[in-house]
Amino acid sequence: MADEISTAMTGCQGKTVLLRLRNSKTVQGTLIDFDIHMNLTLDNAEDISEENHVNLGKVLLRGDNIFAISLPTDKS
Amino acid sequence: MADEISTAMTGCQGKTVLLRLRNSKTVQGTLIDFDIHMNLTLDNAEDISEENHVNLGKVLLRGDNIFAISLPTDKS
Amino acid sequence: MADEISTAMTGCQGKTVLLRLRNSKTVQGTLIDFDIHMNLTLDNAEDISEENHVNLGKVLLRGDNIFAISLPTDKS
Amino acid sequence: MADEISTAMTGCQGKTVLLRLRNSKTVQGTLIDFDIHMNLTLDNAEDISEENHVNLGKVLLRGDNIFAISLPTDKS
Amino acid sequence: MADEISTAMTGCQGKTVLLRLRNSKTVQGTLIDFDIHMNLTLDNAEDISEENHVNLGKVLLRGDNIFAISLPTDKS
Amino acid sequence: MADEISTAMTGCQGKTVLLRLRNSKTVQGTLIDFDIHMNLTLDNAEDISEENHVNLGKVLLRGDNIFAISLPTDKS
Amino acid sequence: MADEISTAMTGCQGKTVLLRLRNSKTVQGTLIDFDIHMNLTLDNAEDISEENHVNLGKVLLRGDNIFAISLPTDKS
Repeated sequence: MADEISTAMTGCQGKTVLLRLRNSKTVQGTLIDFDIHMNLTLDNAEDISEENHVNLGKVLLRGDNIFAISLPTDKS
Repeated sequence: MADEISTAMTGCQGKTVLLRLRNSKTVQGTLIDFDIHMNLTLDNAEDISEENHVNLGKVLLRGDNIFAISLPTDKS
Repeated sequence: MADEISTAMTGCQGKTVLLRLRNSKTVQGTLIDFDIHMNLTLDNAEDISEENHVNLGKVLLRGDNIFAISLPTDKS
Repeated sequence: MADEISTAMTGCQGKTVLLRLRNSKTVQGTLIDFDIHMNLTLDNAEDISEENHVNLGKVLLRGDNIFAISLPTDKS
Repeated sequence: MADEISTAMTGCQGKTVLLRLRNSKTVQGTLIDFDIHMNLTLDNAEDISEENHVNLGKVLLRGDNIFAISLPTDKS
Repeated sequence: MADEISTAMTGCQGKTVLLRLRNSKTVQGTLIDFDIHMNLTLDNAEDISEENHVNLGKVLLRGDNIFAISLPTDKS
Repeated sequence: MADEISTAMTGCQGKTVLLRLRNSKTVQGTLIDFDIHMNLTLDNAEDISEENHVNLGKVLLRGDNIFAISLPTDKS
């Protein structure tokens, strides 16, 4: 049984992902790269939790703060 | 003694599961895949905690945020 | 010195156990299977924390949310 | 240097121990068995936190919820 | 580079140590033994957090609840 | 698949990084060095969470307190 | 890539360090020794969080309670 993080996120690089964080924030950005701990780098990241989005630039996020990742489907 | 996550979830792929999360939310969706850490991918996921369900699309959830998974029985 | 989870739970399969959870809830059900991390599957599980019991069906619970398990004695 | 859990608890089987838990509760019972993670089984366990003691029967407790164990001395 | 818990606590056995706990309590007692996880056994332990000290007897404490240990110096 | 912390942070030494911490504070400084646990040393670090910045000097931060690191881009 | 805790703290023994703790307290003292988990022993330690400093003597601190360490620079 393979590691599900790799299985699910492979193919998402260069695409937009939506991160739902354990602190209830929501961050959107372009997935640059990731590892098996769900540590990941986003480009053009934005905190979109509030109506006024906050530009975060290029960020490295620790995987243990992430609750779920909405993945792009083939249509998106 | 086998790993209970694999034992219980094998055979549930393609079926609807109900996740009860540590943050008291409830998420329902079609189980695509999982690993031994309970990391799992759902399709057509919905946050059904409140009366108005929130569509989450295809999501990868970290297993350490999950409290329990209601599994489909043979009848469901 | 053996692993106490296996020692204590072996022989409880098919019997009713009462789980006291870290979130103060109490869940009762028939123990189907378990592993050394206390991950376990219950059949006919019920959340009996409140006066109105909530039927949970067949559930897989992560062991790290469990505080204690009341085990059946030979009389029960 | 030996594992202190084994060193301290060996010899306490069959005796009454008092568990002080991380959730501030106090549980008393007869120690049946334990492992190096401080997972332990008590017989005739009682939650004695409040004036009215609550009978818990035979319970398996996860060691990571325990804060301290008052051990019987030779006199007790 | 040696393990600092062993380095610091070796030589303290039989002496009085003061534990400052993560739950803000303070416990004093005679150090009987310890291991590299800071699990330790105290004799004649007392919870001295409040003005009225509470006698705890002989206790085994899990190291992960300890914040700091005041060590005896050569003068003490 | 490489470790993403190394991948993302290599090349950032000597540059200014912005740390967003799990306790909601924001710290800025010049990255001196780091390891794969995201433990890192900053020079001229400043807590910029409040309007009045607090000078922290040269600090070693534990990686497990970090939520995200805003990385310099080639333009910055 | 070396372990950053060793890299940063080597050379600080015998010097004064300032610990910022996860419980928001601040402790100052002379660094005697440390290990790769950031467990460390301070001499003449003082809790300087409040205006009235509290003398802690010689203390062994668990590294997992530490948020950051302000390191002496060559000038200090």
